[in-house]
Amino acid sequence: MNPRDLPPNPKFAVVGAGAIGGYYGGRLAQHGRDVHFLMRGDLAAVRKNGLTLRSGDEVVRIENVNAHAATSDIGPSDVVIVALKTTSNLDLEKLIPPLLHDGTVLLTLQNGLGNEEFLAGRFGAERVIGGLCFVCLNRVGPGVVEHYGHGTLSIGEFERAPLPRTRAVVRKFQQAGIEARLVEDLITERWRKLVWNVPFNGLSIAAGSITVADILADEGLHKLTRDLMAEVIGAAARLGHAIPMSFIDEQIQRSLVMGPYKPSSLIDYDAGRTVEVESIWGEPWRQAVREGAEVTRLEMLYFLLKRLTSDAGS
Amino acid sequence: MNPRDLPPNPKFAVVGAGAIGGYYGGRLAQHGRDVHFLMRGDLAAVRKNGLTLRSGDEVVRIENVNAHAATSDIGPSDVVIVALKTTSNLDLEKLIPPLLHDGTVLLTLQNGLGNEEFLAGRFGAERVIGGLCFVCLNRVGPGVVEHYGHGTLSIGEFERAPLPRTRAVVRKFQQAGIEARLVEDLITERWRKLVWNVPFNGLSIAAGSITVADILADEGLHKLTRDLMAEVIGAAARLGHAIPMSFIDEQIQRSLVMGPYKPSSLIDYDAGRTVEVESIWGEPWRQAVREGAEVTRLEMLYFLLKRLTSDAGS
Repeated sequence: MNPRDLPPNPKFAVVGAGAIGGYYGGRLAQHGRDVHFLMRGDLAAVRKNGLTLRSGDEVVRIENVNAHAATSDIGPSDVVIVALKTTSNLDLEKLIPPLLHDGTVLLTLQNGLGNEEFLAGRFGAERVIGGLCFVCLNRVGPGVVEHYGHGTLSIGEFERAPLPRTRAVVRKFQQAGIEARLVEDLITERWRKLVWNVPFNGLSIAAGSITVADILADEGLHKLTRDLMAEVIGAAARLGHAIPMSFIDEQIQRSLVMGPYKPSSLIDYDAGRTVEVESIWGEPWRQAVREGAEVTRLEMLYFLLKRLTSDAGS
Repeated sequence: MNPRDLPPNPKFAVVGAGAIGGYYGGRLAQHGRDVHFLMRGDLAAVRKNGLTLRSGDEVVRIENVNAHAATSDIGPSDVVIVALKTTSNLDLEKLIPPLLHDGTVLLTLQNGLGNEEFLAGRFGAERVIGGLCFVCLNRVGPGVVEHYGHGTLSIGEFERAPLPRTRAVVRKFQQAGIEARLVEDLITERWRKLVWNVPFNGLSIAAGSITVADILADEGLHKLTRDLMAEVIGAAARLGHAIPMSFIDEQIQRSLVMGPYKPSSLIDYDAGRTVEVESIWGEPWRQAVREGAEVTRLEMLYFLLKRLTSDAGS
C-alpha cells in the first residue's frame, strides 16, 4: 500500500477508548466502518452492552463493538486513532507496534503540543497525522459517552501539506456524520487552540476551581487571560506560526457566551484525575523558551500547575 | 508636649490586641509601663485572667491588665500601637480620634505597604512612625500569645530621619526585654521584608497550601521565588529604595534552614481568616506599576491571590 493513500475501506484501531476515542470511533462504527477498540476498564461492559453515544435527546446504541483487551488481538490496521491521555504516552511504545504495517497512519487526537513529535520519534514521522477536537465530550459511564454542542474535528499532516490519505481520513469522518475539515498547517492549529486552553484551563485550576464565566468576571484574571493569550501568540509567531492579535478578542467574545463552563482540565482536576500539564503548558513553555520568546506568565502558570497537580499537591 | 519628644513615662494604647498587639503591649505592661488595650472578643477573659505570654518553657502571666471595650474609655495617649489587621484599616478612622492629643505618636506594627500612608492621610504625617516585626507570634487562645524564636522589632519614622521620640520609643521596648532597633529608612525596611513575604507568603497559598521547604524543594517554584524577589528589588529601586541583588541569596539561605515553616498568610488562609492581600501584594504592585517597574509575576500572583482569598473563592 502507498503510505500516501488509504484503502477504500480502511481498518481503524482506537487506542484510548475514553470520551474522545469512544465518540469518534463509535461514530465510525455506527456508520459501518471496520473499527477495533482497545479497551481496559470498560471491556466487559462494552462487549455486553456495546457503546452508547448521547447527544442531547438523541441516543445511539452501537451493538457488536469490536472490543479487545490487547492491541496484538487487533493486529495491523490502516488508521490508528490515538486518544490516550497524554500523561500515558509512554504506554504507546508497547501498544502501537502490533498495529503497524508499512502504510499504517497514526492519527493523534490528543491535547496540546508534543504528541505528533512523540509518535514521529518512535514510529516514523511519515506515519503521523493529527487532529484537533473542538467539542465537549464526557465519559459518563462504562461505554457511555455524552456529547455537548457541536464542534469541528480539524485534521492535518505533521510537518507536511495534506496528502491524499489526509483527505481520505477527513472524508471517512464526514461520512460518519462528523463535522471534519482539513487543515493546511496542523501545528498552527494546535497553537490556536492553546491560545484558549493555556489561560482558561490553567486559571480555572490555579484560581481555585472556577469557571470560564468566573475568570472573565474577575477584573484581574480577565486581564491575565488576555496577557497569557498574547504570550502564546507571541511564542507561536517565534516558532513560525502566525496568529493575528485580533484572535484574542475573538476568543474572549466566544468565551463570554459560554457561561459557567468548566474546562476539561478543571473537570479532571476536581475529579482527582491526572491533568495534562506537560502537553498544554510544559511543552509550549519549553518550545517558547528555546526560541527566546517572552513567556513569563505561561512559565509561572506552568510551575504552579505542575505543583498543584502533583501527587505532593493537595 | 513637643511632638518630637516623648514624656519619661508615656501612656501607651494598643489598638488591635491580637498576637502582635498582645505580645508587644504585654511585654511593656510586664515591665511596668502604663499600657491600655482595646479588646473585643478577649475582653472578659483578659479582665479575669490577664494576659499570658509563652516563649518556649517560659510562661509569663500579666495580671491587672488595663483592658477596655472602647478607645474613648482609654482617652488621649502618648503612643498608640496600631496592630490591627490591615484588612480592618477603615475601622481606625473611628478608633483613633479618642486617643489623640497634640503630641500623640502613632506606631503601626502592621504588615506590608500603605499603612503609614493611611495613618498619615487621616491623622497627619508628623504623628506617624512604623515598626517591622521579624518574629513569629500566634494567638493560641483568649489573651494567650505564643512566641517562637527570636526576632527584632525595627522602628523608624515615616518619611523622616529618626527623631528624639523615635529613639525613646525604641528604648522603651528595649527596657521591656524586646530586641528593638532604630532604622534610618523605614520604607526601605518594608521593601526588604516584602522581598521575602511576596514570594513565600504568596506561593504558599497559590501553590496549594505548602510550606517554605516545599516551595524551595520544587524546582519551578524555587526559580519563581527568586524571580519574584528580583521583581520586588527592582520595584523598590525604582521607588528609591536600594536593596542589593545579593539579598536574594541571603534570603534563600535563611529560608532553607526554616524547614516546613508556614508563612503567616498561609496560616490565616488555612484557618479561613482574611489574608492581607492588599498590603502585601496589592499596594507594592500599584506602587511599582505607577513607577513603570516590570512586575509581571507580582501582578499575576496578586490577581490569583485576590481571587483565591475572596469570598467568591473556595
